[in-house]
Amino acid sequence: MAQTSFELIARDGRARRGVIRTPRGEIRTPAFMPVGTAATVKGMMPESVAATGADILLGNTYHLMLRPGAERVARLGGLHTFMNWSGPILTDSGGFQVMSLAELRKLTEDGVTFRSHIDGSKHMLSPERSMEIQKLLGSDIVMAFDECPALPADRDRIAQSMRLSMRWAARSREAFGDRPGHMLFGIQQGGLEEDLRGESAEALKGIGFDGYAVGGLAVGEGQEAMFGCLDYAPGMLPEDRPRYLMGVGKPDDIVGAVKRGIDMMDCVLPSRSGRTGQAWTRRGQVNIKNARHADDPRPLDENCTCPACRGYSRAYLHHVFRAGEMISGMLLTWHNLHYYQELMAGMREAISDGRFEAFETEFHAMRAEGDIEPL
Amino acid sequence: MAQTSFELIARDGRARRGVIRTPRGEIRTPAFMPVGTAATVKGMMPESVAATGADILLGNTYHLMLRPGAERVARLGGLHTFMNWSGPILTDSGGFQVMSLAELRKLTEDGVTFRSHIDGSKHMLSPERSMEIQKLLGSDIVMAFDECPALPADRDRIAQSMRLSMRWAARSREAFGDRPGHMLFGIQQGGLEEDLRGESAEALKGIGFDGYAVGGLAVGEGQEAMFGCLDYAPGMLPEDRPRYLMGVGKPDDIVGAVKRGIDMMDCVLPSRSGRTGQAWTRRGQVNIKNARHADDPRPLDENCTCPACRGYSRAYLHHVFRAGEMISGMLLTWHNLHYYQELMAGMREAISDGRFEAFETEFHAMRAEGDIEPL
Ligand SMILES: [Zn+2]
Ligand SMILES: [Zn+2]
Repeated sequence: MAQTSFELIARDGRARRGVIRTPRGEIRTPAFMPVGTAATVKGMMPESVAATGADILLGNTYHLMLRPGAERVARLGGLHTFMNWSGPILTDSGGFQVMSLAELRKLTEDGVTFRSHIDGSKHMLSPERSMEIQKLLGSDIVMAFDECPALPADRDRIAQSMRLSMRWAARSREAFGDRPGHMLFGIQQGGLEEDLRGESAEALKGIGFDGYAVGGLAVGEGQEAMFGCLDYAPGMLPEDRPRYLMGVGKPDDIVGAVKRGIDMMDCVLPSRSGRTGQAWTRRGQVNIKNARHADDPRPLDENCTCPACRGYSRAYLHHVFRAGEMISGMLLTWHNLHYYQELMAGMREAISDGRFEAFETEFHAMRAEGDIEPL
Repeated sequence: MAQTSFELIARDGRARRGVIRTPRGEIRTPAFMPVGTAATVKGMMPESVAATGADILLGNTYHLMLRPGAERVARLGGLHTFMNWSGPILTDSGGFQVMSLAELRKLTEDGVTFRSHIDGSKHMLSPERSMEIQKLLGSDIVMAFDECPALPADRDRIAQSMRLSMRWAARSREAFGDRPGHMLFGIQQGGLEEDLRGESAEALKGIGFDGYAVGGLAVGEGQEAMFGCLDYAPGMLPEDRPRYLMGVGKPDDIVGAVKRGIDMMDCVLPSRSGRTGQAWTRRGQVNIKNARHADDPRPLDENCTCPACRGYSRAYLHHVFRAGEMISGMLLTWHNLHYYQELMAGMREAISDGRFEAFETEFHAMRAEGDIEPL
């Protein structure tokens, strides 16, 4: 099987444009990865997700191990076949979600035992089991098993947690072994403490990974604190490897992260917002529930080429949301994912053209204008 | 605007193949019309509905007049533009649904007053208002305003109701006026009473319509009684006009109706079943919720070319149904609508080839075999 690689194509300030090559296809970076929690990006056919411009999906180890089960997915040909997505898939390690979703968690040096939030059944995750599950799923980019506290947390708790995660990172690397065509990413921890972030980065580099995630952010610290950390954290990681900021974010979080040297991101926001009547556009957020849209024949965004904007009025989107129709979530999710991918494509081009700063200025100026005036 | 027409292409026994021509496109008959109650076929993009082979959709006057409102739809360019469906649309008159869904109904010679089941607001429907609403929606095939009792009902009630519907049919014809490019269908009533069906047919022919519906069936009488009525009722209607059986049905109802000379049908069944985990196949019904599918790598129907069968295993469809994912309803609805349209296409071809009887025999034989054996 072919090897994987990461090539940096252009830089503009700290922003980077590149490409990750995998046997399942190329991932143009900066990349936004839609989240396919339970083997589906909610409300979307996979070919529609691809049509928005997504090169890679994220799958959740925690959800998939509980239902339908990793061994079952493996018997059925792996996650790509199961969910009908032929491009690359990144899976998280399950570490973050087990700590936020599972019941009766018990954390030891070995790993975590817990009960399923679905049916109360007992399960275990450790670096070794997480590697095994991600292999069973057939993940192209595997994440090391880690653990992190919600912020704010005291320095001792953050340090202890980070050092445990680094020991788990070494065990993850060992358990992953040699799998040509697949990548293993380590995850930097250390909260908002610069020296702990440095210690974590050194530990990870000592182990050696195909890519590096900045973990433990977007967990309640706010954008200013997150950007503060991103001013130094990515620079601690190897230049020649992709950098992945986990669980981010809103469009302005994403632009600020790319500006600070991040290459990959994932977030449920565009799909979750789509199901609650929230649309993201160049002009900021649009709440389609609002009565101002009931008679508005204009599309969400006249410049958007997504099916929701090309085929439907705000009045229609308002109507189907109010009526509780499935097409409401389908169309708004499609629009939101399309918008996110257009944003990534715009940043990639701006980086190549050496005009990222102008892009960012325009991005904020459009948002400051706000939504079009009601009719 | 061009005129409309109905051409009979072939006959086989009482079964008929034909084509209805409208300025918005041709409708191949026998035709099955998916139901787009609230300006959407639930769980489907309109281009996907078209991809299943549907030539025409049905819209519900009662639902649309309440939400978003007929005048609003008209201001927004009509129902076709509103819901992004460029093909023909047939709208029902609202008569049937107002009697089954609305609250505090009051029926007089003039029409029906009622309160909305959504917000309790007060509304009125009469032949004149129904014609006005269907014109505002921009319907291509308009149904006369009628009324019918649930079966069983006593003969006097059925006769009175039928005669009121015939007076309303005359008022509908008058109110519809002359609208080139649009068709008005009358609706035969009379329950299971052959002489009342005859009286109704004569009344309708005296008024003159572009097509004729057999109304008041599929309201609780059972398949045997319905087929009994269809043995004589379609033959009372003009040969050279399309005959529409309202609200039917299951696949075997549909085959039996076509056999008896019906040209058009509509039903929520394929889409509603899709959302509750029920699939219709050549081999009968499949309940995807059933545990037997959890590890089954085979498609619902290996001969089906729909996206659900080409891209996904029964195991996947089982998983996403259990997980409550939107894609479950999206895929099963797509499959069901595809199956229904394949069934119609198969009957059209069989009629042209003079082998409808063989088609029907094969149809029942495949169903009798039942679903494929569990692995
Ligand atoms: Zn759009
Ligand atoms: Zn199918």
